[in-house]
Amino acid sequence: MATGTEDVTGYIIAPDPQAARLTRAVEGVDQTGAPARIAVVEERPLTIFLNGHEIVTAMTIGDYPEYLALGFLRNQGMLREDETIIAVDYDEEIETVVVRTASQTTYEEKLKKKTRTSGCAVGTVFGDMMEGLAGVTLPAGEVRTSWLYALAHRINRTPSLYLRAGAIHGTVLCRRDRPLVYMEDVGRHNAVDKIAGWMLSERVSGADKILYTTGRLTSEMVIKTALMGIPVLASRSGFTAWGVEIARQVGLTLIGRMRGQRFICLAGAERLVWDADPDLVPPESPRHRRKGAGG
Amino acid sequence: MATGTEDVTGYIIAPDPQAARLTRAVEGVDQTGAPARIAVVEERPLTIFLNGHEIVTAMTIGDYPEYLALGFLRNQGMLREDETIIAVDYDEEIETVVVRTASQTTYEEKLKKKTRTSGCAVGTVFGDMMEGLAGVTLPAGEVRTSWLYALAHRINRTPSLYLRAGAIHGTVLCRRDRPLVYMEDVGRHNAVDKIAGWMLSERVSGADKILYTTGRLTSEMVIKTALMGIPVLASRSGFTAWGVEIARQVGLTLIGRMRGQRFICLAGAERLVWDADPDLVPPESPRHRRKGAGG
Repeated sequence: MATGTEDVTGYIIAPDPQAARLTRAVEGVDQTGAPARIAVVEERPLTIFLNGHEIVTAMTIGDYPEYLALGFLRNQGMLREDETIIAVDYDEEIETVVVRTASQTTYEEKLKKKTRTSGCAVGTVFGDMMEGLAGVTLPAGEVRTSWLYALAHRINRTPSLYLRAGAIHGTVLCRRDRPLVYMEDVGRHNAVDKIAGWMLSERVSGADKILYTTGRLTSEMVIKTALMGIPVLASRSGFTAWGVEIARQVGLTLIGRMRGQRFICLAGAERLVWDADPDLVPPESPRHRRKGAGG
Repeated sequence: MATGTEDVTGYIIAPDPQAARLTRAVEGVDQTGAPARIAVVEERPLTIFLNGHEIVTAMTIGDYPEYLALGFLRNQGMLREDETIIAVDYDEEIETVVVRTASQTTYEEKLKKKTRTSGCAVGTVFGDMMEGLAGVTLPAGEVRTSWLYALAHRINRTPSLYLRAGAIHGTVLCRRDRPLVYMEDVGRHNAVDKIAGWMLSERVSGADKILYTTGRLTSEMVIKTALMGIPVLASRSGFTAWGVEIARQVGLTLIGRMRGQRFICLAGAERLVWDADPDLVPPESPRHRRKGAGG
């Protein structure tokens, strides 16, 4: 295509950069004082309820609110994997999602824990997330380097809100060399939570998946990936020491600084199969290179 | 200097990329399967107490814990500007900071509000932050484009944890063309909170300052800057629509996408004085260009 972006027919869910609700044209001035008009991403509150309880207000671009709510609650350990969800009601006008379950959830227990922390855009109950890891066993399996290169190339060229308006994070659920579900959000953890919500809704297993993200490989990102049962997490960005430590503890393959032919693997390298010659990987084009998405 | 970085004598506080406690060497493999050893940033919990109350556990690199605690509480509206702080006690071993005030704080009130949200690494009481804005009036004044170019050039070339290990956000308090206090953290909001804590401790006014950040110009970033009394916020990264809206409401000058000679101003352009010829601004060198710090 003339625009240098690929078709998205391989995706189950791809970004919709033309969706009117997700960006807004804003007028300003540029460095010469001339009028400038650019597209900027929306950022709006979404309050998540679990049965009768108000849980959190997340700042989000606003797409897939039901998946965001489900995935957030699941990744916080507030919904067990076997919980029967009877309804997920989104009300656009009052910016709320209510998740209803058949029986009481573990939420009341969680409330007792005071320690909480967060990544981008939503608070988290960190102690619980770490606890949840105790039961996680990530499956063995191979990750071919040719898949990693194919995924990065394809994802970077997929039309996205990032390419249109910037200031947004992307996370992509992949299988082998194929990107399946590509979510974006102003909060990086919202993008991963939306994927978790989709997986929960569609009863999709993480066992044969690879998670690709534009954000950093922090402890929270590694924990969420492991809780989703996904054995491989890859990113354009760098690592934190604790992220690496947790990945090693749970046996997750952690790949960072993926740019052009280069990457570094700091945990779970036993899954890697070097079937691609890095010298044959084309460098990233400036048009698709991410320039400080920021956080 | 041969390394292409500048001396940091102009700073009151500059990053300390060689500090042993802030990064760790980690071994892994690279894209060819060869052993690789890289420096990665630390990420550790810090639990903040206000008098007898446990408030939050933030994930931080761990420098300036006292400033982080003070700035976090101040930016959350839990400490009034005139509050008498009698002690700030940091205990490295148990990773806590306790801030003690002479009288009861507004915290009990805040607890009643359930709505909360967060940016990177710490939860926030959003409703309160918005409320706090009602009393904010940002002073008029000029921002010369020559200052913006000088700041970006200088900050990008300052030795930093980012240049050493990546995966970290930076925020810099500046006056005219001079960077004064350069904080970095794994959570972007921690970096800005550490600056707020320093300003509170040193009784420094925001009125004649410019805040420069590597992160995105979200609603939370704009609100914090306004609460600190700083009339100008500039970033390498992009905007969210709500960030722009709030900046316009409070009369804050909001400049984004600052790279090389380019930038866009989407709010408060009346403060700008175009005294530099953009064509004379050198492009960013690849060594100092930020490559997707991520969030």
